[in-house]
Formats: sequence, C-alpha cells, structure tokens
Amino acid sequence: MAKVITQIERADAALIDGLAAAGVATVHEAQGRIGLLASRMRPIYAGARIAGSAVTISAPPGDNWMIHVAIEQLHAGDILVLAPTSPCEDGFFGDLLATAAMARGCRGLVIDAGVRDVRDLTQMAFPVWSRAVFAQGTVKATLGSVNVPIVCAGAAIDPGDVIIADDDGVCVVKRVDAAGILQKAQEREAVEEAKRKRLAAGEHSLDIFDLRTRLAELGLRYE
Amino acid sequence: MAKVITQIERADAALIDGLAAAGVATVHEAQGRIGLLASRMRPIYAGARIAGSAVTISAPPGDNWMIHVAIEQLHAGDILVLAPTSPCEDGFFGDLLATAAMARGCRGLVIDAGVRDVRDLTQMAFPVWSRAVFAQGTVKATLGSVNVPIVCAGAAIDPGDVIIADDDGVCVVKRVDAAGILQKAQEREAVEEAKRKRLAAGEHSLDIFDLRTRLAELGLRYE
Amino acid sequence: MAKVITQIERADAALIDGLAAAGVATVHEAQGRIGLLASRMRPIYAGARIAGSAVTISAPPGDNWMIHVAIEQLHAGDILVLAPTSPCEDGFFGDLLATAAMARGCRGLVIDAGVRDVRDLTQMAFPVWSRAVFAQGTVKATLGSVNVPIVCAGAAIDPGDVIIADDDGVCVVKRVDAAGILQKAQEREAVEEAKRKRLAAGEHSLDIFDLRTRLAELGLRYE
Amino acid sequence: MAKVITQIERADAALIDGLAAAGVATVHEAQGRIGLLASRMRPIYAGARIAGSAVTISAPPGDNWMIHVAIEQLHAGDILVLAPTSPCEDGFFGDLLATAAMARGCRGLVIDAGVRDVRDLTQMAFPVWSRAVFAQGTVKATLGSVNVPIVCAGAAIDPGDVIIADDDGVCVVKRVDAAGILQKAQEREAVEEAKRKRLAAGEHSLDIFDLRTRLAELGLRYE
Amino acid sequence: MAKVITQIERADAALIDGLAAAGVATVHEAQGRIGLLASRMRPIYAGARIAGSAVTISAPPGDNWMIHVAIEQLHAGDILVLAPTSPCEDGFFGDLLATAAMARGCRGLVIDAGVRDVRDLTQMAFPVWSRAVFAQGTVKATLGSVNVPIVCAGAAIDPGDVIIADDDGVCVVKRVDAAGILQKAQEREAVEEAKRKRLAAGEHSLDIFDLRTRLAELGLRYE
Amino acid sequence: MAKVITQIERADAALIDGLAAAGVATVHEAQGRIGLLASRMRPIYAGARIAGSAVTISAPPGDNWMIHVAIEQLHAGDILVLAPTSPCEDGFFGDLLATAAMARGCRGLVIDAGVRDVRDLTQMAFPVWSRAVFAQGTVKATLGSVNVPIVCAGAAIDPGDVIIADDDGVCVVKRVDAAGILQKAQEREAVEEAKRKRLAAGEHSLDIFDLRTRLAELGLRYE
Repeated sequence: MAKVITQIERADAALIDGLAAAGVATVHEAQGRIGLLASRMRPIYAGARIAGSAVTISAPPGDNWMIHVAIEQLHAGDILVLAPTSPCEDGFFGDLLATAAMARGCRGLVIDAGVRDVRDLTQMAFPVWSRAVFAQGTVKATLGSVNVPIVCAGAAIDPGDVIIADDDGVCVVKRVDAAGILQKAQEREAVEEAKRKRLAAGEHSLDIFDLRTRLAELGLRYE
Repeated sequence: MAKVITQIERADAALIDGLAAAGVATVHEAQGRIGLLASRMRPIYAGARIAGSAVTISAPPGDNWMIHVAIEQLHAGDILVLAPTSPCEDGFFGDLLATAAMARGCRGLVIDAGVRDVRDLTQMAFPVWSRAVFAQGTVKATLGSVNVPIVCAGAAIDPGDVIIADDDGVCVVKRVDAAGILQKAQEREAVEEAKRKRLAAGEHSLDIFDLRTRLAELGLRYE
Repeated sequence: MAKVITQIERADAALIDGLAAAGVATVHEAQGRIGLLASRMRPIYAGARIAGSAVTISAPPGDNWMIHVAIEQLHAGDILVLAPTSPCEDGFFGDLLATAAMARGCRGLVIDAGVRDVRDLTQMAFPVWSRAVFAQGTVKATLGSVNVPIVCAGAAIDPGDVIIADDDGVCVVKRVDAAGILQKAQEREAVEEAKRKRLAAGEHSLDIFDLRTRLAELGLRYE
Repeated sequence: MAKVITQIERADAALIDGLAAAGVATVHEAQGRIGLLASRMRPIYAGARIAGSAVTISAPPGDNWMIHVAIEQLHAGDILVLAPTSPCEDGFFGDLLATAAMARGCRGLVIDAGVRDVRDLTQMAFPVWSRAVFAQGTVKATLGSVNVPIVCAGAAIDPGDVIIADDDGVCVVKRVDAAGILQKAQEREAVEEAKRKRLAAGEHSLDIFDLRTRLAELGLRYE
Repeated sequence: MAKVITQIERADAALIDGLAAAGVATVHEAQGRIGLLASRMRPIYAGARIAGSAVTISAPPGDNWMIHVAIEQLHAGDILVLAPTSPCEDGFFGDLLATAAMARGCRGLVIDAGVRDVRDLTQMAFPVWSRAVFAQGTVKATLGSVNVPIVCAGAAIDPGDVIIADDDGVCVVKRVDAAGILQKAQEREAVEEAKRKRLAAGEHSLDIFDLRTRLAELGLRYE
Repeated sequence: MAKVITQIERADAALIDGLAAAGVATVHEAQGRIGLLASRMRPIYAGARIAGSAVTISAPPGDNWMIHVAIEQLHAGDILVLAPTSPCEDGFFGDLLATAAMARGCRGLVIDAGVRDVRDLTQMAFPVWSRAVFAQGTVKATLGSVNVPIVCAGAAIDPGDVIIADDDGVCVVKRVDAAGILQKAQEREAVEEAKRKRLAAGEHSLDIFDLRTRLAELGLRYE
C-alpha cells in the first residue's frame, strides 16, 4: 500500500506568506481554534517563523527512507511533514538531508520524531520543529508513503495544506481555507493592535471586553 | 465559591528585591529546602531573575477569564501565579495580557499551564515560567478565584507570598518569613563565596567540609 | 559495597580530542549506532562540544556526597558521569562543585538527574547535560561508588570510557575502541563531505545512494 | 462553528459484530497496520471486547456538555468517542451518563481524557477506554460538536466509522472499508490458526515463514 | 527543622465513615470540586474504598525512616499520607511496614512515590494508592517530619484531614469541613439516585437538566 | 555486527527456582539494591512470579525479526528479554510467538516495548512484563542480535543472567552471583519473618531496629 503522490495542489504563494506573517497563534484563532499540533513539537532554535505547503511523509519507526523519496517531490516553498506510524524519537533527519532539501527550496521540517545535527541545522538556518533532538540513526528498509493524508502530533494534515510554524509551535490550515483564514487573521491582527494600545495605556480588559456584567451574573464576589 | 480578594498583604519591597538578587537556589537552601515549584516550570527565555508578590489565580482548564480579573488587582512589583484546577497546557496568556499586566507594573507570570506569543513576550522582556509553550486558545466562560491559596506545580502558595524565579526555576517564600530568609540567604552567599575561592584554588571539598572521617566510618573503600 | 576505584585507564588524549571534533552523531554512526544516552539528556546551553574520559558516579537519589569524592579522582580532561540508583531530578550539582571540578581540569558533567545554578555554569562555560534543571538541594548521608560500571540514561558506561557530548546529546565509546572508532568517524566525515557537495548541487540522494531499484522491488508506486 | 450532525451512516451490524470478534490486533493487521489509537488508551477493566459505530464528540477541555448532546444521537450499537480540543484528563464521564448511554444501547466509550465512577461502570459492565481515571468534575459552559471528524489519541475518526476495542486497545476502521477488512481479518485468522498449530507442535517460525535465507543474505552470523 | 507532632485533631469517626461510603467522586463534587490528588495516584488493587484521618509524612527521596516514626503516631482509623520532598518512585513501603501499620489499625497508605510487596499487600487487604509500584529499596539516613502540612500529588493536606480513596483516586476534605461536606454529599447522592432512575428509563439529560435553551442561545446548530 | 550467540551458560536450575520463590523485592535487597529494571515494566496480569535464564535480544524499533531467531535458541526455563535500540512501544510479541516460545519451555517475556494479544496471553498463562500494551504491528526487515549484552529498562543484562519477575517488577542477578544471592535472600527472609511476627504483635519498628537514638542525635523533635 506504499505510494508516492507526485501531483499535489498547493495554496497560492502570497496566501502562504501572509499566513507566515500572521504567525501560529493568530492563525489558530482565526480558524476557530483548530489545527494545532501538540505542544511537544518544539523548534530547534528560537526565532524562525515560516509557512509552506505540506509534503507529507508516513514512515515506519526508525526508518527514514521515505524522506529521501519525499525530497524529490519538493517544490520551492514546501515544508516536509513527517509522522511515524508509531511513536519514535529517532533522529530521522540531519545535515545531509537538510542540504538536499534546501537545494530544492524547502523551508523547513516538521517531524513528530527526532532530529540530529542540530548545530549544523542552526548554522544552515534550516528550521525544524520536532518532538526530540536525538542522534539515533535510522535504516532504509521498509516502505512508507509520501503525500498521503497523515495525523502528525494530533493534527490531521493533507498534502498541500499550509503549515505555519514559529516559536509558539505548529499549525495547519486546510489548503482551500487559506484565503479565508488569512483574511480573518489580518482582521484579528488589526483588532488586536487597537486593543493593545488601549491596554498599554492602562485600560482594563474587563472594560474593553465588557466582561464585568457577566462576571456578576455568574456570582463572582469581590471581598 | 468563586471570589476575588482585593486586599492582600505584601512583603516589603526591599526584602523582595533582596530575594531576587539571591536567586532561587540560594533562597531554597536558606529556607530549609522547601518551596520549590516542580522542575517542569521553565522560563520562556534565559537570563531573567525576578521576585515579586504573588497575585494568585485558580482557573478552570482552558479558561483564562480570571487572568483578566487578576490583572485589575495587580500592584507594581507583583507576579501573577496561575494554577489550573486540573492539568492543562493551553495557552492562557499572550502578548495582549502581557501588555495589560506590564501597564500595571507586573514583573512576570508563573503558570502551571501554557503560554503563547513567546516571541513577542521575549521582545517585551516580560518573563514567564510555564509548563508548556502552546498556542491553544482559551475561553471566558467559567469563574475561578483570585488571591486565594493555591497549589501551583506542587507548591502551596498564598496571595502575597514572595515568588522568586530565575533560570533554575521558581521558589516561594512565605510573606512573613521573607526577612528571616533573606538574612539567611545573604549569610549563605557570604559563606559560599569563601568556599568558592578555596575550591578555585584547588582545595578539596572533602577537606573544606571535613567529610573524610564520616566516609571512612560508613565504610567507603578506596581501591 | 561502596567503593572508589582510584586507578582507571584512560584513552589517548589525541583520540579523545578527535572524537570531540567528530561529534555525537558521527561517532554514534561510526560505531554501529550504539552508545547513545537517552534523548532526555539535554545541554544547559547550546554550542558546547566536548569529549573526555568518564569518571563515573553511582549515587543514591537526592544525595550528592559521591560527587565530592569523585572530584578528587579527576584528571585534566575528564568528564563526570553520574547515574542515580533510582530516578531523581534533584539538583545534585551547582556552581561550587563546578568550581572545584574546573580547578582539576574537568571538561563537563553528564548527569541523569538535575543541575542548578545554570546561569552561573553558563557564565563559567562549564557544560552540563542533564535530565532536568532543578534547584532542589541534596544531602550527604549515604555512600555510593566512584569509578564503577554504571548505566546512565540507558547506556552502559565503564570508568575511562570516552564520553562525547554536544547539542545532539551524549554518546559513549568504549575506551579500547576509541582508536578504531575515530578512524571510522573520520572516514565517514570524508564520505559525507563529498555527498554534501553533490546534494547541495542538486543531485538526488535516491541516485547518490542508488535507492531506486530496491524501492521498485519492494513495490513503491508513484501515482 | 459548533454543530450536531444528526444523520450519519453506519456500517452493517453483522460486519461490526464480525470485527468485534476478530479483535483489535487482527483488524489492525488486516487493514495494513493503520487506525490504532495511541497506547495510552487503556480499558478500565479487563476482558471487554466490543465494536460499534462511532458517535464522535469534540469538546473543550473540562467541559462535558457535548456528551449530553451526543447521547441523544445514539443508536443501539453505537460507541461514544470523545477527543478534547486540547490535552485534558478530567473525568468527563461517570455512572449517570453511562446509565443514559446504556438506555440507548450504547456499547461503550472511548475517551482521550478521564473517566470516573469506574467501580460503578465496572459493575454495570459498561466498558471505557480512556487515558486516565480521574474524578475531577467538568462544567457545561462551552459548545463543541457532535458527529464531526475528530482526531482521537492520534487516529482520524469520522462519525459512523467502526470502532473496535479490547484489552489490546482501540482501532478504527473506515465505514466503507468494513466489509473488505472483515474478510481480510477472517482470512488472517484462518492462516494464523494453522500456524499456531505448527508452532505449538514445535516447528520453528524461521522455517514456517521461510526466514533463514534472507537472514543469511543480510549477514547474520551464528557463533 | 525536622519534627513530629504527636497530638493532632481528627474528625468524628461517623463522619469519616460516611465520607467513605460516599466515595471520591461524590465527595469531590460535594465540596466544590477541590481536594483531588493527581490522577497518577492509582490503587494497587481494585475495589478498596476507605476513609481515615491523615497522618502526614514529609520524607526525603529514597528515605523511608519517617514512616517508621509515623507508624508510632497512628490511631485506629488513620491513613498514612507520604509526600517526598522531590519526585521519587522508590519503594518506600512493603509488607513489614504494612504489618506494623495494620497492628495499629491503619486503614491504608497514600504515597506519591513507590510501593513494593504488592502481592503480599493485596493478600493482606492493605490498600495503597501510589504513583508507582517499584521494588527499589530505601535508606534510613535523613530526617523528615510527621504530622506537618504537606502537598501530596498536588493537594494541600494537613494532619487530621479526612482522606477518601477508592478506584477513582484520592480526595482530601479539611477536617473542620467534614460534617458539612458529608451532608452535601448525601444530598447529592439522593438527587443523583432520582436522576439515575429517570435516565435509566430513557429520559434525556438535556431535558432533566434543562439544557436545551442555553445550547440554542449559544448557537449550537443541529444539521 | 548482527550476531547470534548459540552457546550461553546458564545458572543452576535449583538456584533459579529458589530466586523465583524469593521474589523481586527480596532478591533486589539481597544483592545490595542493584539490578532492578525501571518501574515502567509492568506485568500484563497479576500474580505471576517467575525466574529464568535470560536469552537477550537487541532489536531495531518496530522490527521483531530477532524474536523469531531468539526462540530457536531457547532452552526450557529461559526467559526472553528484549531491548529495542531506541525507545519503542510497538507490539513486538503476540500469541503466535508465545505459542512458539511455550513450545520450547520459555517461562515468560520481559520487553522494554509493547506486547499485544494480551487476552490470549493471559489465557495461555504466558506472563509478560512490558512498558506498553499496544497492538501496533512490526516488520521483519533489519537485523539485530541475540544473546549479546543489553541494557533493558535501565539494567545491564548479559545472556544467561537470572531474571526474576513478579508483581513488583523485574530484577536481574548476574549468573555467577546466583548462589550467593540466593543464600542472602533466604537469610533475609528468615530475619524478616521474625520481624514480621514482632511487628504484628504490636512492637514498634523504632525499637526492633533500634532507631530512636540516632533520631535524637540528628535532632528530631517530638512536639
């Protein structure tokens, strides 16, 4: 049942870049608080904020063969997204694969497993979000699939979905929803900017969000 | 049973600043090795070292309403301390709430749950110690309490207790004990400084602490 | 049964330094993918890369007495390696012990427990790989052993074995294997450098490693 | 965006019962080793083996309101499947809800959160697979959805999918695949039965599965 | 600072037995959903349901000396409650200590650490709620305290507080609140019994609890 | 480097059976509190107590090929002990392999990974100690080794070492130490039996073990 889907649809590049600028927290809110990957997915270095189209990989534990296959399928602007078929923290990915991926314009890796050579990856500015940093090597013995639907760190991801990743973690936006979500995200940012100024000036959020009445109705007592 | 205590006693500002200067490890030792929060409480960026009076929050999982309520209760120099009523890693707190808290002189947040917008918080120099970084949004639907006794990450904390936090984690000192503990902490620092010089000069701690006799009594063999 | 072995054999200094230069991931590969410590062993700051001879410590939970004993046994270039006899994350080690260890030329600490004073240790450039950062103090009440075989974070380590540690984690090389492993590591680095150039130039790893035939044999379908 | 889908398609009852009889491990194998929920999903008592149609619930952490809504949607033979929108181990479900669910013919509950009243549930013979047993109460304050696609303990589940659960854990079979998978499962059982007899009689699996040649080719040495 | 408080107040025996009969989930609800110990506290065998007065123990990791001290302080009907001063899963308690405790009328042990000899304890019908089963032995080298306030598995417990423990976990009721909580628990049980009958008869909880209006107000859509 | 050692030495059968009768906790104590496997190793059913000679397996994550190889090496009375080369909870072992192992007189399995078909294994009375119950299937693609030294759940185990396993967990005794440890275990049991009677009769362990003097010396205060 192992297969590689070679033709996937991707979202518009401008939408993707807009979602990157909005960042994970804002995009997650804009789409109704769905799409987050589990909090165990942490960046190997601080400060990266990327978005791209998911090239998905389903791989057996301890076997990184399908990453080699997936890299051939990369377009510029893509992000590799790997979910092992059972929990594993082996170091599926290191500086050689990063070199190959960067040569194809890959923007980063999201992997619910381990990564290694993180000093090199940091110097190369190739960002990775992973569940572990672990040098344990992997084999090339068993097939998996590329560009099939996966569940990665608790989120359902289809190939071509938009991945947004920054210091807060990783979020996925369905490809067909990208335009709508971007608009909502930008609206949210505008609203938040206004609130931020009022809060910085010392107004209470209880007033800005008009929360006092409901608090009283529910019975909150001030003593 | 939800309530907000609006008047709490706080320790003297000079004592608080003295405890900040001593740092978590020294204060923890000075008070007989009690008061540490669990090791899962990690700073979102390295290098911060703060102390302040605890404004405590007991909140349901996934509901940050009471943070809005608590911010109104902040005095300059306070630290927000939140314990969810059951384990939760949602992102209760982000840059808007940090803006509001900073506007009232809040020195930081200690939260046994998640935090988001950590890039912004880092740029704002608003330190947070949390169990997770997670963008998951929260609701404002259910009451909790502010300035009640809580257990946060395994430590019992009363409102107005002194919180000390740095790269080693978080420690709480009972408000009424602050003066005594500060004195012991400073005495300890003086003693340690003397030992540090002797150790740097090559003396053995086995001699400085006079440990050899007891080792022999208990039967340690050198082979 | 507590004892201190005062005479241990160490690997040649040049071999040790060569292994440090190769780094954890390469050494792990060079020796057939064995010897890694568990991924929970993380550095307290990024960028350190060291190797040294293991001075091993077996200590009861919450008791750091044997570190004092072990420091006396250090030679320049050694690394302290501590495994508690049951899981523990207390802060066995801080700036005073680091001062003493550095005075004897110790290159770092690997501890399957906690460490504290991490800000000081970072400023001192004394690297530590640990399972936790935790200020919890320890006692000096119960004996353990120094320079006995231990299992640390899942790896069997004998005194005098070579420890390599960097941002990817920690690896152990048997003392008697050091020369052979170093040679293989350097050969591997040479091979990898050649591959890196080809990958950077855009060649596919599927071609460089000649993987396509076996993929087809196993039935991978491209759609 | 909260909604309840009131009409869902279900698999044929005979297929469902057939899958129950096959059990989790066999079904998982029969469908190509997909569909397992994470190993943290454990039964509250040993010995139950059920299958049924998934009535799915997406609920906020600490809020069990949607279970009340979902129970109204139950048909005889269904299984409730709840995924919180962020990790939570509160006790969403106890004996009252079990009484209501059993009154509608519900066969059990799969919940990636907590359950309580487990002594009562055991006496009622209402099986539950959960990540935790925890008495922590929940609120009814925030909407979720019923019969929408969810990811539960790492598996993507659509309403009406067939859930199989036993002492080995929980597995999901896509509704439309149920007939095909059942056939493969039964074929697999027949094959396994034959093998079991040969193995019980003392034959080597290396011979039965003809594994010796490939072992030798790959270089396994017997010493 | 190590001490043993020899005189503690206990709740009335009839209240304690009443709370045992109500069980953990009901008592937890009756007192406003507070007082639960963390879900990691699991019974070593199913079916026990006890309540008793807490004799508290604060002990260093890996040191069970204070249990010996505490047993001397037991009255008939008490429960031992141990919190280590840092996380530890050593086997602090086995059949010898259980024999001693039972000889004094102790009803069970709640320990946020490990226990051993669980087969013997099961045969003796001495119930234990613990975070681990682990045979690791402990020492008698460092003092702790008996009958001081502790935080055990996230709950603040004073000596003489009422501990309730069953298959759902462990709950603490403040001694002075026992009478009031028991009354509320019994009222709750009466109300639940009525609801249970209506639910068993097929009524919807949405009707019994009058939940439909608020669901509609908040915008839940049925499709 | 994959290999199978076909000739291993085993301890005397009577010694092994004697150690089984003593049980894990007693044996662990008798040999100076070493040799325990981590507490995550739990039995799939209660009540089993076995001992046997270790036939060790080092296997890649998700690959159970070497179990087939190891079963051929079993003698009556042996115990299979598997450590994956990186953390993995896949179900390496089920009822078919158990059938094959039992046909060779194997007494049980200790596996720092997952097991499946646990209902069948329970009915077959084939005991397993594992870190997980998980139905996830494994492949037969990559070599490992049989009867080589391994580290399993934190304990160093050589082929032919004596494994003892019961409800308290798993312990290893070095083959050459078996006779001495058995004698100490039996002596310990005799001593404990005497103490048990005195404790059951109401004597204080503080008196039996003569602990009061040292408590006073260290400063324990009774208030």
